[in-house]
Amino acid sequence: MRSSALPLVKLIEQFERLPGVGKKSAQRLAFYVLNLPKEKALEFAAAIVEAKEKIHKCESCQNLTDAALCPVCLDENRDKSLVCVVEDPRDVMAIERTHEYRGLYHVLHGVISPLNGVGPEHLTVKELLRRFEDGLVKEVIMATNPTVEGEATAMYLSRLLKPLGLRVTRLAYGVPVGADLEYADEVTLSRALEGRREI
Amino acid sequence: MRSSALPLVKLIEQFERLPGVGKKSAQRLAFYVLNLPKEKALEFAAAIVEAKEKIHKCESCQNLTDAALCPVCLDENRDKSLVCVVEDPRDVMAIERTHEYRGLYHVLHGVISPLNGVGPEHLTVKELLRRFEDGLVKEVIMATNPTVEGEATAMYLSRLLKPLGLRVTRLAYGVPVGADLEYADEVTLSRALEGRREI
Repeated sequence: MRSSALPLVKLIEQFERLPGVGKKSAQRLAFYVLNLPKEKALEFAAAIVEAKEKIHKCESCQNLTDAALCPVCLDENRDKSLVCVVEDPRDVMAIERTHEYRGLYHVLHGVISPLNGVGPEHLTVKELLRRFEDGLVKEVIMATNPTVEGEATAMYLSRLLKPLGLRVTRLAYGVPVGADLEYADEVTLSRALEGRREI
Repeated sequence: MRSSALPLVKLIEQFERLPGVGKKSAQRLAFYVLNLPKEKALEFAAAIVEAKEKIHKCESCQNLTDAALCPVCLDENRDKSLVCVVEDPRDVMAIERTHEYRGLYHVLHGVISPLNGVGPEHLTVKELLRRFEDGLVKEVIMATNPTVEGEATAMYLSRLLKPLGLRVTRLAYGVPVGADLEYADEVTLSRALEGRREI
């Protein structure tokens, strides 16, 4: 016979399904939610429902949004000649946190990965190409992850885009700021040497 | 201007409030929930609402339950002469996982801690004393945590309970099974020596 109340067991199970949350953490989270004031707990549940119901892809850049166009695409102050191609909406957030980039984005929602059966047709490549029809975009920055698959996707896309007369660039490789050279891997170090600049 | 949709930002904030969940993890969890099939995400939200609305304290042992009495108190096969006093409902779960204990529980919902302003009146001590009125209980096992505060609470309660003619016991201290003696602290080791048994 189970010794805990079913609604509690169900809540723990729900938390256990989250990535990186084990049995013990799920228990801790479930009890935390149970100990919240009622309105706070209901707010949490409502946030899940609301996000799930309202969030969809932006018509233009395919980032997640609750309106037809996302806040970045709607922003009049953005440089519409620049498009930064990323794998994931989280990458948009990461780049936005720099407060340096003022262009637009395009979210691929994945990366070409033949081993996992993901081809260009599973990504938002068609939507990307459609964005260059009006000729406003001059430069496309490939900001896919510096992995084999991210690299291959960037190469594939640049081959598609260069014939359209677009400038295609890639994020710089090098040693991360604040890191220790001693611990940098060989590939990163050789890329950093390769990409050295005059000071 | 914010670059992400508000429902998404709100969901991330909700996850960020959970204990042990930082900014990055909150983002990962929020995107995981967003990528769930709709019914799974709604199930998650419903589990929170249901747990929050249905779960309350058991009338007898004060453990969390969705009925008047918790499953343990309702179980006819439990030894009603034995009550194990714990700090937290999670401790009940931990002891239940051993499948060794067949008595009842009493959940204090905290521990006496003068520094944090928690006195016996904030715990379920009154409810504990009421359980001995019918004279069915013969032994009370103190299973508060082996900390200064858990210890003090066990001492306080045992002074209350012994005059009632109850046998009051405490969990054994010693080296945890599978641990390395080399890494056991001095207090644990001396308690293990003190509590040695013939083999």
